[in-house]
Amino acid sequence: MSEKNVSIQTLRRLPLYLHYLKSVKDDAPRISAAMLAAALGLNDVQVRKDLGSVSGSGRPKKGYVTEELIVDLEKYLGCNSVTNTVLIGAGNLGRALLSYGGFSDYGLQIVAAFDNNENVIGSKAGDKAVLPMSELGRICIEKNVRLGIITVPASGAQDACNKLVAHGITAIWNFAPTLLKVPPTVLVENENLASSLAVLSQHLNDRVK
Amino acid sequence: MSEKNVSIQTLRRLPLYLHYLKSVKDDAPRISAAMLAAALGLNDVQVRKDLGSVSGSGRPKKGYVTEELIVDLEKYLGCNSVTNTVLIGAGNLGRALLSYGGFSDYGLQIVAAFDNNENVIGSKAGDKAVLPMSELGRICIEKNVRLGIITVPASGAQDACNKLVAHGITAIWNFAPTLLKVPPTVLVENENLASSLAVLSQHLNDRVK
Repeated sequence: MSEKNVSIQTLRRLPLYLHYLKSVKDDAPRISAAMLAAALGLNDVQVRKDLGSVSGSGRPKKGYVTEELIVDLEKYLGCNSVTNTVLIGAGNLGRALLSYGGFSDYGLQIVAAFDNNENVIGSKAGDKAVLPMSELGRICIEKNVRLGIITVPASGAQDACNKLVAHGITAIWNFAPTLLKVPPTVLVENENLASSLAVLSQHLNDRVK
Repeated sequence: MSEKNVSIQTLRRLPLYLHYLKSVKDDAPRISAAMLAAALGLNDVQVRKDLGSVSGSGRPKKGYVTEELIVDLEKYLGCNSVTNTVLIGAGNLGRALLSYGGFSDYGLQIVAAFDNNENVIGSKAGDKAVLPMSELGRICIEKNVRLGIITVPASGAQDACNKLVAHGITAIWNFAPTLLKVPPTVLVENENLASSLAVLSQHLNDRVK
């Protein structure tokens, strides 16, 4: 069952399950969808369906062997395969992401960082040298890069995106606060921190419906 | 019109408009909803409605004076007022957010960072000293803290959340990959980077519906 397509909504929940299971596996050798749903505050039926779509190892009334479910989730999420990634924009946020270790759990490996600012090129960001944009094409080919992270200011994001697309990248993680135009084969996942902040600020001012 | 409630969907788009307007204001002294919609790849009617809900300065056929619209958006988003914030969890991601300058545009000011790891307490994160959790209550009162950012591992997130809620915080920005249980008066905005990454990885493997 592990090769079946799942919805984006299910997919977004899978890392939550995986994290929780890893945190309890020593104390809970078996786990049911109902226990997982209760622990995470999710709907029982939904969790059962989500797990069923990525693992065939659940048994009625007995639930899952926690370790087996972890293995199935890791396999489905590609945690054991490596996705070579480039990052464009070695400012504060870019450097932050470079030094954040948590992505490697999901197979993401940032192979190089790029910038067009002469003062930044050649410096180190995390343990990576910051390269000029003119090197992007060479690195994308040499390292078989498949994913691009954009952490430039909004004004430069479309240009960075166009360069990634021109070099064959089909998955883009956009942290710039702007919407990007891409061909239909390219997926952009927007991480708009300012939007989240806007929602929180308005809650503090009691103005969110 | 600027005090009217807006939907969360509208609210999430307002920072996009603001960023774009700031980037073009020198070249475009006036701007229409249609121009903005075209530039950002959004629906014309939606943008017109969004802008109308936060600014009364638009004129039929003439659009908005760009500077006036910027002022109205900044006012609505509370960019000119300061929201004192604490951050719990001074690991890589926490330090990253502390050193990221972009939040101050939205009035967010991180006044202190907290951790329960003895090896980290007393060190510097950005230009902030990392304090022990036992100081959280004092700082929340002294600095009138209203927002809490959680960047601890998933296993410690609920505990960090409970402490924030106990100290009167009603808006929580959660970067830990887990769902938090809070009273109904508290708003949690989840920033689940692993979920985004899961969506991108599956696109690369052509398995997203």
